Amino acid sequence: MAKDSFNVGVIGLGTVGTGVARILLENGESIGRRAGIPIRLLRAADLDIARDRGLDFPEGVLVSDAGTVLDDSEIDVVVEVIGGVSPARTFIETALGNGKHVVTSNKEVVAKHGRGFLELARANGVNLYYEAAVGGGIPIVHALKNCLAANEIEQVFGIMNGTTNYILTKMHEERTEFESVLKEAQDLGYAEADPTADVDGYDVAYKLAILAGIAFNAHFSYEDIYFEGIRKISGEDVRIAEEMGYAIKLLAIGIRREGGVELRVHPAMIDRHHPLAAIEGSFNAVYVKGNYVDETMFYGPGAGALPTASAVVGDIIDLAMSRGLAGSHPSITTGFNDLPVLEMGEIRSQYFLRLRVKDQLGVLAGIGGICRDTKVSLKSVNQHTVSRTEAEIVLVTHTVREVAMQRALAGIRELETVLEVQNLIRVGL
Amino acid sequence: MAKDSFNVGVIGLGTVGTGVARILLENGESIGRRAGIPIRLLRAADLDIARDRGLDFPEGVLVSDAGTVLDDSEIDVVVEVIGGVSPARTFIETALGNGKHVVTSNKEVVAKHGRGFLELARANGVNLYYEAAVGGGIPIVHALKNCLAANEIEQVFGIMNGTTNYILTKMHEERTEFESVLKEAQDLGYAEADPTADVDGYDVAYKLAILAGIAFNAHFSYEDIYFEGIRKISGEDVRIAEEMGYAIKLLAIGIRREGGVELRVHPAMIDRHHPLAAIEGSFNAVYVKGNYVDETMFYGPGAGALPTASAVVGDIIDLAMSRGLAGSHPSITTGFNDLPVLEMGEIRSQYFLRLRVKDQLGVLAGIGGICRDTKVSLKSVNQHTVSRTEAEIVLVTHTVREVAMQRALAGIRELETVLEVQNLIRVGL
Repeated sequence: MAKDSFNVGVIGLGTVGTGVARILLENGESIGRRAGIPIRLLRAADLDIARDRGLDFPEGVLVSDAGTVLDDSEIDVVVEVIGGVSPARTFIETALGNGKHVVTSNKEVVAKHGRGFLELARANGVNLYYEAAVGGGIPIVHALKNCLAANEIEQVFGIMNGTTNYILTKMHEERTEFESVLKEAQDLGYAEADPTADVDGYDVAYKLAILAGIAFNAHFSYEDIYFEGIRKISGEDVRIAEEMGYAIKLLAIGIRREGGVELRVHPAMIDRHHPLAAIEGSFNAVYVKGNYVDETMFYGPGAGALPTASAVVGDIIDLAMSRGLAGSHPSITTGFNDLPVLEMGEIRSQYFLRLRVKDQLGVLAGIGGICRDTKVSLKSVNQHTVSRTEAEIVLVTHTVREVAMQRALAGIRELETVLEVQNLIRVGL
Repeated sequence: MAKDSFNVGVIGLGTVGTGVARILLENGESIGRRAGIPIRLLRAADLDIARDRGLDFPEGVLVSDAGTVLDDSEIDVVVEVIGGVSPARTFIETALGNGKHVVTSNKEVVAKHGRGFLELARANGVNLYYEAAVGGGIPIVHALKNCLAANEIEQVFGIMNGTTNYILTKMHEERTEFESVLKEAQDLGYAEADPTADVDGYDVAYKLAILAGIAFNAHFSYEDIYFEGIRKISGEDVRIAEEMGYAIKLLAIGIRREGGVELRVHPAMIDRHHPLAAIEGSFNAVYVKGNYVDETMFYGPGAGALPTASAVVGDIIDLAMSRGLAGSHPSITTGFNDLPVLEMGEIRSQYFLRLRVKDQLGVLAGIGGICRDTKVSLKSVNQHTVSRTEAEIVLVTHTVREVAMQRALAGIRELETVLEVQNLIRVGL
């Protein structure tokens, strides 16, 4: 059926949804010419349609009921930008079941239910696109799915969360503590009232599950990914890292190994000369290493209404350009490789360990003995007195297995001379 | 017609063509699964089919006549990787005329004849893809054409030539002169025997014409682009730049202005803390600034057989995935905006000017007078004696119009006290 426009229905007019509506209303003509078909915002649903969003919606576009969008036979693509699993999951499944393409920016629902969505999409001859779910405005999903598809991807890693990168940047710049920067970020709207998903690493784990799935052509559950957030990083960790020539960044790391894939999310101390150390504020950067292309990097705003909306509209344009191409694109992400996520204990890294200890003879001997017994080779040990009775010890190891480091840590915790393990941070990429 | 494979014919088995053949032969199965259809290397044509390329071509694939590829009704896409205008142009036109898609890595022929190719492609219901023509393995063409298509692009700029970046990097690292690094690069195979296209800026002008055309949705002739190469950059320029906190890079710059587009290619002194200053060797990096996405950057290998071949195969995969979609994608690049390239005299920049002068009283007064009369405001002036009779003067201006700077330069050249204008280099982005 030849159609005279490609029709969009948006569900959720929060910041991203409002951004999508704004781009389509403001730049629609130019976008339509690029796509080769007019792209029309036909419906935009939100529970609150009274609020002024600074946009001049054409008559009849604003509706308060998502069902109006899902059931409208004129709509070709449903944009789901409400976030979370419920009711987003149902909306996506209904839309796909009704033969509509879906574009979403919702990393959580894609990480948790993407596999089912893709099967449903295929069964209904439609597509599911989710460029905006990872890396905000950076076209990293498309790059992996299409442009770099000639390669066997060996590594994908980088900074994939804007909120935590903003907080860590501020902690470096202003020498402040996590809690106070978080509060400031919340006041400025850069962090959510409930910051758990960002600062505890869930958000990045969702993104890594999605990105690694595409990169390695497999399905990964975010629950199989080891993840740590940045809540435990103190101003003192940041200060010592700087002294040692490092910046602390929250990294997502996916590496193809023999027998599986290493997937992990955690803060890491990286050399201050590495380009990732220079990624500031809410910007994200993702490295991809392929067997033919070598190393590539993609940088841009990892969050924000308009950058994220730019990615959503990019997906809409792609769908509009490939209308009639039902069912061909999803094949690329259905994950034909059966790759296990390797145990975290199997990774190898350097480690930074900061301890509060009793300031007495033999403390180092005890710690050194445990490291020797667990085969954790030490690169440097620095001790300084903090009070009449206490000292702080900073250890940096050579590259060792995580399981060995964890054994050493357990032993060190048991020592009567060790008052507190202040932090264990991985060093390097 | 349902087909059971997507068939590729390669014309030209130089480094890139051999890389394409290698990827298709080596990784074909995985690529086919991603594309949703087997991708088959059906023919590979080169005048020399006797040479050992380290590949095990299936029986009948190697042919010595390009016509065999162009006339083969089984072939869906012709890959043109011979470079240059003749006979590449004829091959591309014949392939498109025969209803075959074309993928090329040939920036020169696309910059010079791309508009005609796209019209021919459209008339024949096929596509022309050229990701590998700009940025080697970096998927910058696709990012601009599709992923960022929601945006009005405001700026596109960066380092787009691997050979010159390699030479400039070496000149910084090893404090050597252009000619000796060029010779070394030629010996290592990083620079061509005839280096003109790279070192004199033609290559980058072709790339900028292509990239700006996509970014600003217009057609630009590379002949309208102001370009300078790096041949005039001396070890002394590099040394002084470093002292002043700059790195010298060959930049391509496209900026949307009121009334047109600023397009230029020239060496520039950029702050050593800018990420572009850290792009080393044959790597490229392209910044894109859009009205919604803000600033994004794409980094990767700008040259090399396999990275370039990775981009070519990415295009083949894209075409395979959208088979039957004839004629829809080219519309995006046919350039519906009618934008003039602004006169170079209209740009505004800071300038670095290095002069050899007579070491006598009044030299600075003369130069200063000309700058005053031409309204070139000076930021710094440094003079040092180089012999009993000669001195060197280094001037840095505030931001002024190019036309004013050129007038000042003409006046300075006329001064009896000025022995030689050693270099004029733009400062900043």
